[in-house]
Amino acid sequence: MSLLDQTILSIDETLDEDAFHSAKERLANQAKPVGSLGIMEDISARLAAIKGTINVNLSNKRIITCAGDHGVTQEGVSLFPADVTPQMVYNFANNGASVNVIGKHAGAIVKAADIGVNHDFAPDLPIFHKKVRYGTANFTKEPAMTRAEAILSIEAGIEIVNELEALEPVDLLGTGDMGIGNTTPSSAIIAAFSGIEVEKLTGRGTGIDDKSLKNKINVIKKGLALHKPDPHDPVDVLSKVGGLEIGGLAGLVLGAAARGIPVICDGFISTAGALIACELAPAAKNYLFVSHKSVETGHRFMHKRLGLEPLIDLKFRLGEGTGAALCMELLDLSTRILADIKTFEEVGINDVQ
Amino acid sequence: MSLLDQTILSIDETLDEDAFHSAKERLANQAKPVGSLGIMEDISARLAAIKGTINVNLSNKRIITCAGDHGVTQEGVSLFPADVTPQMVYNFANNGASVNVIGKHAGAIVKAADIGVNHDFAPDLPIFHKKVRYGTANFTKEPAMTRAEAILSIEAGIEIVNELEALEPVDLLGTGDMGIGNTTPSSAIIAAFSGIEVEKLTGRGTGIDDKSLKNKINVIKKGLALHKPDPHDPVDVLSKVGGLEIGGLAGLVLGAAARGIPVICDGFISTAGALIACELAPAAKNYLFVSHKSVETGHRFMHKRLGLEPLIDLKFRLGEGTGAALCMELLDLSTRILADIKTFEEVGINDVQ
Repeated sequence: MSLLDQTILSIDETLDEDAFHSAKERLANQAKPVGSLGIMEDISARLAAIKGTINVNLSNKRIITCAGDHGVTQEGVSLFPADVTPQMVYNFANNGASVNVIGKHAGAIVKAADIGVNHDFAPDLPIFHKKVRYGTANFTKEPAMTRAEAILSIEAGIEIVNELEALEPVDLLGTGDMGIGNTTPSSAIIAAFSGIEVEKLTGRGTGIDDKSLKNKINVIKKGLALHKPDPHDPVDVLSKVGGLEIGGLAGLVLGAAARGIPVICDGFISTAGALIACELAPAAKNYLFVSHKSVETGHRFMHKRLGLEPLIDLKFRLGEGTGAALCMELLDLSTRILADIKTFEEVGINDVQ
Repeated sequence: MSLLDQTILSIDETLDEDAFHSAKERLANQAKPVGSLGIMEDISARLAAIKGTINVNLSNKRIITCAGDHGVTQEGVSLFPADVTPQMVYNFANNGASVNVIGKHAGAIVKAADIGVNHDFAPDLPIFHKKVRYGTANFTKEPAMTRAEAILSIEAGIEIVNELEALEPVDLLGTGDMGIGNTTPSSAIIAAFSGIEVEKLTGRGTGIDDKSLKNKINVIKKGLALHKPDPHDPVDVLSKVGGLEIGGLAGLVLGAAARGIPVICDGFISTAGALIACELAPAAKNYLFVSHKSVETGHRFMHKRLGLEPLIDLKFRLGEGTGAALCMELLDLSTRILADIKTFEEVGINDVQ
């Protein structure tokens, strides 16, 4: 059996209901009005159910930023030239990028992963070296990658989780992306799954103008019309209009879910990866948190399809794992709320409700 | 000149424009698409303007939770009995309450302040002892407090800031409230200033039912009709339908603004205090951040009047300073974003924009 199939099969479909109910009960008995910490309470109960305890420990936080290049940049869909992708990988490795700064604030270790960058990195560069190929093909002309490569890209993400866990248990995983041009395949992926008009799903990425946006929409339409990805076959969607780092991001979610690790995905591109994962294995949703609402217009349709609500809306449109990193602080805090806020009984106030 | 007048006069109306522009320039040159960290970038630039530097340090964070009782609880406006107010003050002092837990996570020291609790606390209880009177009067029958008491309550908040600063400089101040029944005066305050119908401004507080909500609306209408607070005289509004802790919260904002300390207010009640402060001294807004969107329906009208957007919406309806504490982490992070994310030049990527 392939690593992918094996991983999908080992995702537990049910969480720990006892821990969930214990969490709910403790939250209801804490010295505050019932439910008054809103979404933070819901998160803490979900984490308890995932971890099987109300004393959830999220100390060991990791963020993996998957990188890949995109042949479709030849069509002028991005403001930045493609060679910024490898340059940013070096920036991640040197801890100078946005995700490094936000990850550090959240107490997370950030590591980049080359899933498909069009550049040779020295083997001693401290990143995960998981290159499947040197960037995707231009999907307006041929499929982004072969089916075998799509599976390999997902398995690369799974392997990363397995390698992290081989070193020490991961308490919380965050996903992030880097790849010039990668809002284009992300819009194409949600379009392929949902059938919603491409216009509604396509945004300005790093900040393209009206004319470029129109071109980007046409590029996506062309790719979808040419390859007709099968919405019931997520690997087909990924291979025809996806991205190598998007496959890696899907693999991170599947790998985390298979090992019972809560995983928080970042913005538009990471959510595209999470969507591939959850279309392959719906039970992966149990372990998935979506961090923020991106400025990208297609993002909400992904969240709707996943049935998950983003935690914050701070008008981010960066990726890298920045939103996931920020929200890790909220998940961490939610565990403190559950465990450390005292109950009416513990503080000697009669619960009047 | 009174402490209040003196404090209002010493609020600087202009921030450091050079630091603001330096911040904007650095943000624009960082190795990421322009503006891609959204609201976090705006916050960081505002903090730079307040502090006069792009290397903003928010290490020393303090949260002050002002407590007071409300005579209007006699009218059955709250689910909890009034004696929960002093019990929660003990809980704050013992570090067991929600704000203590969330404040600790944010690296903030939390301290309660008795501005008007209907209880005698031992002088050695580690809180700010600033009692103006033993709770307000029932404003459906008489003004909540005298004009002199209203001024004293505001000055209590100012004194707390001065006393904190006398010990060591405060980098960031958060405000929070405790007072059974205090959503009622908060709704009354925004109604008095805005003239908007009381129905639109009144919520369920700690969770009252439909019948109690109707009663609460009538109670507020009765108080407003009886005392006709002058919307152009914030002290009149505070004295007639306000709360002692709300006066204290206004004083915290004024005291912080006068000393150039950024101040982040919490939910519905803290924002009512901030509103009193900014109606007295509009320049205080320069130093004010509003943390979260409360479930209380009147909150957005306060934000609208202040012209400030809350940072998060996690369906909190607790108070205590919990939302302020959580958002302190975001403000802190914004300073790291500004100072630590490298520019294209620093990382050796040509800025293509």
